[in-house]
Amino acid sequence: MRYLTSGESHGPKLITIIEGLPAGMPLLAEDINEELARRQKGHGRGRRMQIETDTVEIGGGIRHGYTLGSPVSLIVENNDWKHWTKIMGQDPLDDAEANDIKRKISRPRPGHADLNGAIKYGHRDMRNVLERSSARETTVRVAAGAVAKKLLALLGIKVASHVVEIGGIKSKVADYESIEKLKEITENSPVRCLDEEAGLEMMKAIDEAKANGDSIGGVVEVIVEGMPIGVGSYVHYDRKLDAKLAAAIMSINAFKGVEIGIGFEAARMPGSEVHDEIIWDKETGYSRRTNRLGGLEGGMTNGMPLVVRGVMKPIPTLYKPLKSVDIDTKEEFTASIERSDSCAVPAASVVAEHAVAWELASAIVDQFYSDRFEGLVANIAEHNRHAREF
Amino acid sequence: MRYLTSGESHGPKLITIIEGLPAGMPLLAEDINEELARRQKGHGRGRRMQIETDTVEIGGGIRHGYTLGSPVSLIVENNDWKHWTKIMGQDPLDDAEANDIKRKISRPRPGHADLNGAIKYGHRDMRNVLERSSARETTVRVAAGAVAKKLLALLGIKVASHVVEIGGIKSKVADYESIEKLKEITENSPVRCLDEEAGLEMMKAIDEAKANGDSIGGVVEVIVEGMPIGVGSYVHYDRKLDAKLAAAIMSINAFKGVEIGIGFEAARMPGSEVHDEIIWDKETGYSRRTNRLGGLEGGMTNGMPLVVRGVMKPIPTLYKPLKSVDIDTKEEFTASIERSDSCAVPAASVVAEHAVAWELASAIVDQFYSDRFEGLVANIAEHNRHAREF
Amino acid sequence: MRYLTSGESHGPKLITIIEGLPAGMPLLAEDINEELARRQKGHGRGRRMQIETDTVEIGGGIRHGYTLGSPVSLIVENNDWKHWTKIMGQDPLDDAEANDIKRKISRPRPGHADLNGAIKYGHRDMRNVLERSSARETTVRVAAGAVAKKLLALLGIKVASHVVEIGGIKSKVADYESIEKLKEITENSPVRCLDEEAGLEMMKAIDEAKANGDSIGGVVEVIVEGMPIGVGSYVHYDRKLDAKLAAAIMSINAFKGVEIGIGFEAARMPGSEVHDEIIWDKETGYSRRTNRLGGLEGGMTNGMPLVVRGVMKPIPTLYKPLKSVDIDTKEEFTASIERSDSCAVPAASVVAEHAVAWELASAIVDQFYSDRFEGLVANIAEHNRHAREF
Amino acid sequence: MRYLTSGESHGPKLITIIEGLPAGMPLLAEDINEELARRQKGHGRGRRMQIETDTVEIGGGIRHGYTLGSPVSLIVENNDWKHWTKIMGQDPLDDAEANDIKRKISRPRPGHADLNGAIKYGHRDMRNVLERSSARETTVRVAAGAVAKKLLALLGIKVASHVVEIGGIKSKVADYESIEKLKEITENSPVRCLDEEAGLEMMKAIDEAKANGDSIGGVVEVIVEGMPIGVGSYVHYDRKLDAKLAAAIMSINAFKGVEIGIGFEAARMPGSEVHDEIIWDKETGYSRRTNRLGGLEGGMTNGMPLVVRGVMKPIPTLYKPLKSVDIDTKEEFTASIERSDSCAVPAASVVAEHAVAWELASAIVDQFYSDRFEGLVANIAEHNRHAREF
Repeated sequence: MRYLTSGESHGPKLITIIEGLPAGMPLLAEDINEELARRQKGHGRGRRMQIETDTVEIGGGIRHGYTLGSPVSLIVENNDWKHWTKIMGQDPLDDAEANDIKRKISRPRPGHADLNGAIKYGHRDMRNVLERSSARETTVRVAAGAVAKKLLALLGIKVASHVVEIGGIKSKVADYESIEKLKEITENSPVRCLDEEAGLEMMKAIDEAKANGDSIGGVVEVIVEGMPIGVGSYVHYDRKLDAKLAAAIMSINAFKGVEIGIGFEAARMPGSEVHDEIIWDKETGYSRRTNRLGGLEGGMTNGMPLVVRGVMKPIPTLYKPLKSVDIDTKEEFTASIERSDSCAVPAASVVAEHAVAWELASAIVDQFYSDRFEGLVANIAEHNRHAREF
Repeated sequence: MRYLTSGESHGPKLITIIEGLPAGMPLLAEDINEELARRQKGHGRGRRMQIETDTVEIGGGIRHGYTLGSPVSLIVENNDWKHWTKIMGQDPLDDAEANDIKRKISRPRPGHADLNGAIKYGHRDMRNVLERSSARETTVRVAAGAVAKKLLALLGIKVASHVVEIGGIKSKVADYESIEKLKEITENSPVRCLDEEAGLEMMKAIDEAKANGDSIGGVVEVIVEGMPIGVGSYVHYDRKLDAKLAAAIMSINAFKGVEIGIGFEAARMPGSEVHDEIIWDKETGYSRRTNRLGGLEGGMTNGMPLVVRGVMKPIPTLYKPLKSVDIDTKEEFTASIERSDSCAVPAASVVAEHAVAWELASAIVDQFYSDRFEGLVANIAEHNRHAREF
Repeated sequence: MRYLTSGESHGPKLITIIEGLPAGMPLLAEDINEELARRQKGHGRGRRMQIETDTVEIGGGIRHGYTLGSPVSLIVENNDWKHWTKIMGQDPLDDAEANDIKRKISRPRPGHADLNGAIKYGHRDMRNVLERSSARETTVRVAAGAVAKKLLALLGIKVASHVVEIGGIKSKVADYESIEKLKEITENSPVRCLDEEAGLEMMKAIDEAKANGDSIGGVVEVIVEGMPIGVGSYVHYDRKLDAKLAAAIMSINAFKGVEIGIGFEAARMPGSEVHDEIIWDKETGYSRRTNRLGGLEGGMTNGMPLVVRGVMKPIPTLYKPLKSVDIDTKEEFTASIERSDSCAVPAASVVAEHAVAWELASAIVDQFYSDRFEGLVANIAEHNRHAREF
Repeated sequence: MRYLTSGESHGPKLITIIEGLPAGMPLLAEDINEELARRQKGHGRGRRMQIETDTVEIGGGIRHGYTLGSPVSLIVENNDWKHWTKIMGQDPLDDAEANDIKRKISRPRPGHADLNGAIKYGHRDMRNVLERSSARETTVRVAAGAVAKKLLALLGIKVASHVVEIGGIKSKVADYESIEKLKEITENSPVRCLDEEAGLEMMKAIDEAKANGDSIGGVVEVIVEGMPIGVGSYVHYDRKLDAKLAAAIMSINAFKGVEIGIGFEAARMPGSEVHDEIIWDKETGYSRRTNRLGGLEGGMTNGMPLVVRGVMKPIPTLYKPLKSVDIDTKEEFTASIERSDSCAVPAASVVAEHAVAWELASAIVDQFYSDRFEGLVANIAEHNRHAREF
């Protein structure tokens, strides 16, 4: 499976084309729209999230509620576009128009792609960079991920996410009854936190940051239950599933770290307390007494829940300004104030969930027979039987 | 650029083929052998490291000290192979021989690929898994990385690594005079630590773990200076350099996390203290007052030193046994004692250095003109001038 | 560079996303629309070509007439879609609706993807196959190719195509004054033939085939002038440019063969008459006295015009019916009559031109520096100087 | 599946690494050596073929006669290497040695990669090019293909090849009793021709060409029986199996054309005579009354035998010299006489067979479940049942 995305933050539309899906898989626009809505929620979001209510239009690849096997295209209109047709238009400008263009950006913001991107691609108007480097693009990454998540769900694989830290405040609740229960709690928390008390503190921290013209980051955790054993591979470094998940998480805007299972804690624990003892049961086959390694050993799933965490830095668009340099005048300035979120961590946890879902669905489709969806279901059932009886 | 590796831990040889190198680049076997030697050092290594002194034989792609542009093959003989020709031989066995084969493994070790790999590939003798999943394979990853490092060095890009934490003991020294000085200190430290005092404590912790039949992990840091601005890209998620580096680090055996710059600390700091202010100077162009983001913004290099860290869990091969299950008898056992390292973190920092070097060299070769090495040098010089004068 | 396409023949829209274009390259919707119009012309086309006048909408990646470096999305609406919303709709059907759906196809047509595609993807209604396997998809392949052709044109590389054979009638004119002159003649020929007399015979043959309820195929030739020397590579089989061109041509619907330069004639000529003697001139550097090898030696361009031919079989949709089997009843039938073209070779020559243009532009972007379009121009100029002075 | 190859014609060794094979597949060195021997035979070969008797050494990936799932490396020593250690050595030369180096090449041969390759990679000694562009590299392409062919054979898929034309002399026999019988005849023909009489004429033509200091080319045909229906895909142009086969054939040294089924004849036949009527039988399912389309419709297998042809131009190394230009002096010369084959078409048919086998095995492994070889066997059996009962 592969996908490409296109679209700028204030351009006409965001589009993704997904190639390699099985045929005969149930898929509705609602499946995707629900996830897009989840991405737009969260305490700490700015005004834009209210402007846009993202929904997909299906351009191809689906008929009467089922995938055709042909590429699926998903289109999200930018409702804002009507106000930007001049600034972001595709037609050439004459000199008068060019001079007149508003919102030209010569002042790069620290922590953004602005300056590096402008140097790389030779853009003197850095709007050319930020329109694409914007987290707006994650809309269609979520759309592609929603298709992946649907595929996983139909195979009995459950994906969820929650926020475990915001602005230094950590969730003290790590356990959850079931993934359904975890979802129920986090979907009702404005910061997607399992720990109600910590959640309230997080919201307070977000509000304080906002009041200070500042922003805060945090840590999100994605949990996946029901993956077959042995997805991924140890035989070549670029086939390891943990490596792919690390890339997926790190590629989300503003993420600076990723860890699996106990992650960085592994540097502080003795080997005897790090590894998960193997147990066996006639009914269910092999499992582990603990899950410190987060469901991944040797670059493969081991049948335990996947636990992947990523850290998002505070959003760089700041009310509290940082020094920078105008690329035209070379004069120092303090980075301009733009409307912004003070914390996007809850939304980012939804994005992370979908980035992970994509990698898992993709790995499954690559590893198993997948032309016909019912064949995929049968192949995985057979594999699970093989694993159970091994 | 791309490469493949082949070889089992006790098989005849380890091989890598590297495709896509520029032609006319100076390259000697010594360039690679030096790095292989660095990989074999470090306090806490077991006996095997003494048995093998790895050197490469060049099978193709190099003539009279220069790359040809054709694929480079590098071969490392396993000196141990002569003792394993029966157990690891390629020819079929008759039934008597098959029954007689020694070192058959039916007892999966927790924390290894043993069990998942066996289920995935259907191996009842788990030697078939561990021979490949072994960290022995990193020998040729280092060999490929050494070629990449040479390319970077010839472009004035310096790569180094050091150990910042072992078994909970953290290096207190973060600053270094220059990358050359950092190398000088860490190459002379048996744990590759900048902080002499912490280094002594780390060695003590390793010895204690060994005495207890236990093992410990740690955190390594790779530092790269001299990368051109704008390597990587923000335009598509799978072209982001930070994502590629995350995958490279996470794909190293036993790594469970990766972070860039301040990494997970970003969850605890306000936005106003996270981002790096942009400054400009007529001579040198743009730079940053600080380097909290570790040289990567928007999925691209920003001209500051790259700072990438990874965490390695304690080596799972334990003298202090863990419970597991024999796959033949389904009986519980405590994981068998094998000769082993009690800490491989210093060596892993060398591997991480090479994994990072590969990704950077590969990104450079992909992004710039690279058929002729001198053309690559000129193209980068031109790009650096463009960046400086932007 | 890479691209994906999506869309069914009677679905809502055809879309392509192109990723990897240089930034700062001039690009207008007209550049693409002109090529789309060329694809719709040609003696022998059926009614559908009149229904649809294809034009692209740009969804992203272009601003004020220039590429941004971000992915470019191009959308072509199917004007016919309004009549097909029920038959090709994306929403699920209830049982009554499902039974009522018109134009369900249980009768596979010989020479189409119908039956194999239905078996592969498990479709009992073969409309699910033919909607995607239809040559309608070449619309967006031409759109992507038009972007590639524009890039080539801006680098002074000229791409043209003409029809050299239809239904056994061969063009007797092989020489052309210049590529501009070739274009002038072929653009004015309803069968895109350089040889006016042969062109008239071809049209007669097409009309006769139509009158007989039959169809005919032919051979198209793509010519490219101005490629730099050394694009492609001999160092690895999958990097050879001739191999990529062969795949590009063969992947066009209904193509069954491809040849370069003298092609299959090479089996009948002695080596002394096949190869092109090398000459040299102080002003222009190396060239060849002849061009039997069609501009490609050792998997690379040699500076001579590229000459690539492909053969298209007669369109399988026939008025003159062939026997087949209904997949539901397993009864024999004679393949159903559908409106159709009796010859699509002239249009296919336009498609071939764009398939070739894509491969060439892609090879150039991969081989040279290409982040900034002006950098690409400079890099190729420098390379051409190097080649001339070699 | 993927593979890389390394090695120069007179370098130490040729190596291939194959990644992505199923585990548990029987594989012996003999399986490969037999095919390497077939590649070295054929009327018209020069002396070198007698010098080298190629055999593989297995460097990894196989144990006790079965694949491990890990990458397989295959090494072929160049027996000639001992005479070339100075000329092709890897160590740098001092000035005296450099001046003294023999067999430096400044005179490019028409029809070779020499000149373009030298310009591309900046080699003033064109030995740096021809050592890699030499057809010697096809040794390891055959080795990789032999592994693929073994995989196919174990799945009941039979691959064979024969020569259908040499130097204008065409085989008049197109029919064969069975693929086994075809093999029996062609393996005993020095020109691998089904038609004994034509074979004798071909040999005469080869001898005459040799006597004249000339060379001749020809057309080879690869036939494959037993492929499952629906391998490849129509859904995206780069997934079409015919496109992949075209690339594979065209990437063989000296090939200038490829066709499938009736190929270029399709330009001369009416649609009513080109397509293959579909028939059905309760026992065997669907098949075709004829096989004009060579087993491929819509970019997929249709269950009929695959018929793929390629044309090889006469070997450019000539006794009968062609004009060229010395790149140092810029003086005209007539291309130097080297020992050479006067016709390599029979050997090329063996190479083509393996190039095709690789693509098919690779497509099968990608499309079906393939971690465990027995799982692949079961998955294909299940698919074949599905196809039969469709």
